[in-house]
Amino acid sequence: MAKIEKVSPLAPANFPYIPMIEGVNFSTASAGIKYQGRSDVMLAILDPGTEIAGVFTSSSTRSFAVIDCEKKIHLNDSSTGAAIVVNAGNANAFTGAKGKISVEAITSTVSEVLNIPKSRVFSSSTGVIGEELPHNLIIDVVNRMVADKTEHGFHEAAKSIMTTDTYPKGSVRKVTTNKGEITIAGIAKGSGMIAPNMATMLVYLFTDASVKKEVLQSYISEINEKTFNSISVDGDTSTSDTVLMAATGKSGINIEKNDKSFSQGLTYLMTDLAHQVVKDGEGATKFVEINILNAKSNFDARSHAKSIANSSLVKTAIAGEDPNWGRIIMAIGKSDALAERDKIKIFFGDILVAENGSVAPCYSEELGAEYMKNTTIKISVDLGLGVANTTFWTCDLTNDYISINSDYRS
Amino acid sequence: MAKIEKVSPLAPANFPYIPMIEGVNFSTASAGIKYQGRSDVMLAILDPGTEIAGVFTSSSTRSFAVIDCEKKIHLNDSSTGAAIVVNAGNANAFTGAKGKISVEAITSTVSEVLNIPKSRVFSSSTGVIGEELPHNLIIDVVNRMVADKTEHGFHEAAKSIMTTDTYPKGSVRKVTTNKGEITIAGIAKGSGMIAPNMATMLVYLFTDASVKKEVLQSYISEINEKTFNSISVDGDTSTSDTVLMAATGKSGINIEKNDKSFSQGLTYLMTDLAHQVVKDGEGATKFVEINILNAKSNFDARSHAKSIANSSLVKTAIAGEDPNWGRIIMAIGKSDALAERDKIKIFFGDILVAENGSVAPCYSEELGAEYMKNTTIKISVDLGLGVANTTFWTCDLTNDYISINSDYRS
Repeated sequence: MAKIEKVSPLAPANFPYIPMIEGVNFSTASAGIKYQGRSDVMLAILDPGTEIAGVFTSSSTRSFAVIDCEKKIHLNDSSTGAAIVVNAGNANAFTGAKGKISVEAITSTVSEVLNIPKSRVFSSSTGVIGEELPHNLIIDVVNRMVADKTEHGFHEAAKSIMTTDTYPKGSVRKVTTNKGEITIAGIAKGSGMIAPNMATMLVYLFTDASVKKEVLQSYISEINEKTFNSISVDGDTSTSDTVLMAATGKSGINIEKNDKSFSQGLTYLMTDLAHQVVKDGEGATKFVEINILNAKSNFDARSHAKSIANSSLVKTAIAGEDPNWGRIIMAIGKSDALAERDKIKIFFGDILVAENGSVAPCYSEELGAEYMKNTTIKISVDLGLGVANTTFWTCDLTNDYISINSDYRS
Repeated sequence: MAKIEKVSPLAPANFPYIPMIEGVNFSTASAGIKYQGRSDVMLAILDPGTEIAGVFTSSSTRSFAVIDCEKKIHLNDSSTGAAIVVNAGNANAFTGAKGKISVEAITSTVSEVLNIPKSRVFSSSTGVIGEELPHNLIIDVVNRMVADKTEHGFHEAAKSIMTTDTYPKGSVRKVTTNKGEITIAGIAKGSGMIAPNMATMLVYLFTDASVKKEVLQSYISEINEKTFNSISVDGDTSTSDTVLMAATGKSGINIEKNDKSFSQGLTYLMTDLAHQVVKDGEGATKFVEINILNAKSNFDARSHAKSIANSSLVKTAIAGEDPNWGRIIMAIGKSDALAERDKIKIFFGDILVAENGSVAPCYSEELGAEYMKNTTIKISVDLGLGVANTTFWTCDLTNDYISINSDYRS
């Protein structure tokens, strides 16, 4: 076992201080599903009145926990309390009838202990695919978790859902609306098997704002496209991706559709968490932002961005601090989207690298090599064909990615 | 510079003995374009009467040499001699107006020295993208190359077109038709930036059969789909991919459309060369065959095959000899093609691994782990949805791939 134990060099200095969100309690436990000596189950307990929305992986082999959440998200009624229960170490995906039994057993137990309808209990599992989940280990700790609940549990919660993550991920944002201040906070996990749609991620967002379910859903769905659906670590998509958001309404401040301050705050928060996921990309040493400018269509812009972000050759060049811009040209060329060779402009940061079908006259290898030493690399490609722009984030591809993932059943 | 100098462990024992093909002469030279102390230019000189067909990269940023070949392939008239000139070390791609000037200069020189029309001179360049080709170095050696030509040059020719290849690639097949025996032989280069459409490859095929240009083109186009368009090393597609085939007609044996023995012989040869390219995949230690069975459509079958073949997580698991079949489920799930979770069957070789949405009752981790120790890994996925089958080849993803490609300008 060649585990990489070190924390990502791109990790933030520390987990942010996240104040309590009224109406949200957390609890964690060590059930010993796979990991020993750490917590591996998280329970979020939500007061009555909490509205819940979510977006999920589009994988055709998605897990039963995801299918169960998808069903409940449209049906659940906020008059009762609710809960989110998550385990790390086993994805309970492709586990057939047993997978369904595990989800039923876990959500039933939480429902009974909290005395809330089962339709209000959402579950996620993350870890290895195809192995039976020993759900009794989780059921055994539910009573104790409910007894131990605390309002100040974001950091512990973020730690308990980690798998190959090297640091817990959290973010918080105070939003001042014209009716008063609300708080939005969230935690995330994810570091490998990250790609749209969606990143291999679990994300749980909480706010004390009062937001109707349909309105909450439209915020999440829209902002998800330009945040969690705009990141990639390895181009692989998981069977378990889940983003859930709970709005407790305890602040008494009501958020309607098209509230600019709420939308901006939530975008900030989701972007921050999405970046944290990429920065914990397995083996990552560089954070890469890809801007596609003036594409013919939004679809084309995203197609070019993904082609560059998922190119092993581009990502290994960045790892080697090699300004090998020819590989970006290659990645644009191989994408199915429209590009005209002689209209393409490539930039590293503000440095014009290539234009008119050739290297830019002002560009020098030394300029590019110096730029590549940065920890954050910005690649911009101006296609000169239209007005569609997009931004996408990824990381470099290093030996550590290989070591982590070729390790037997990491 | 952390160059990996060792020969791929998947390399064949030796370069095959390839007899002369009447009407074909080779010459190689050391022009010193990038590499020192080795040959880096190849010239194939073809007698009058030779028909030429080809297929090329679909990249929207393809090189001018490719664009030039595409144009000539439909226009060239076999009444005169012809030539193919190839250099390694510089791809002359994304080099703007200078790139065109280089191609014109090289093909003009070859045309003049051999006294053949320029429309009969095909050129390719392989190596780094975006750097100006010092074409004078090539022009300087043309005269000497023509003087030094030999009919027995397959091995030397294969060596001179290598870039990160760790061994030269050649193949030969004698084909007995009802009119007599003909020979087909070919050489190839390619080891990184390999993906449909097409692999980053240069492939040159020769036969003494007499085949009309349109007929030759239809053989090449059709067989290319199931050979060079069915391999992947890293999912990246080059700007220079070229497959050219020359039929000298010197055997006097005419091949018509739908000649089964010719088609089989050419399929064997192209499959062999395609496998050799994959087996020289940068850092490869395992040769992987992916069979998709009973997909709803051929498009779906290929989509699933590519999704598995290009998944970094599947490829790193294979490198680690980890029978992590959950990652295959993930790759099927993320492909856009149709799959029904509970109908999927997965096999390692003949071992049934998963069915009915879960691990197969007869499967054990030990069986899978033992199978993964093989050098050739066969993964079969039966989708149970239709009758479309496809086979695709790839290799594992190892630390050496990263080392080779994050090496500054490898």
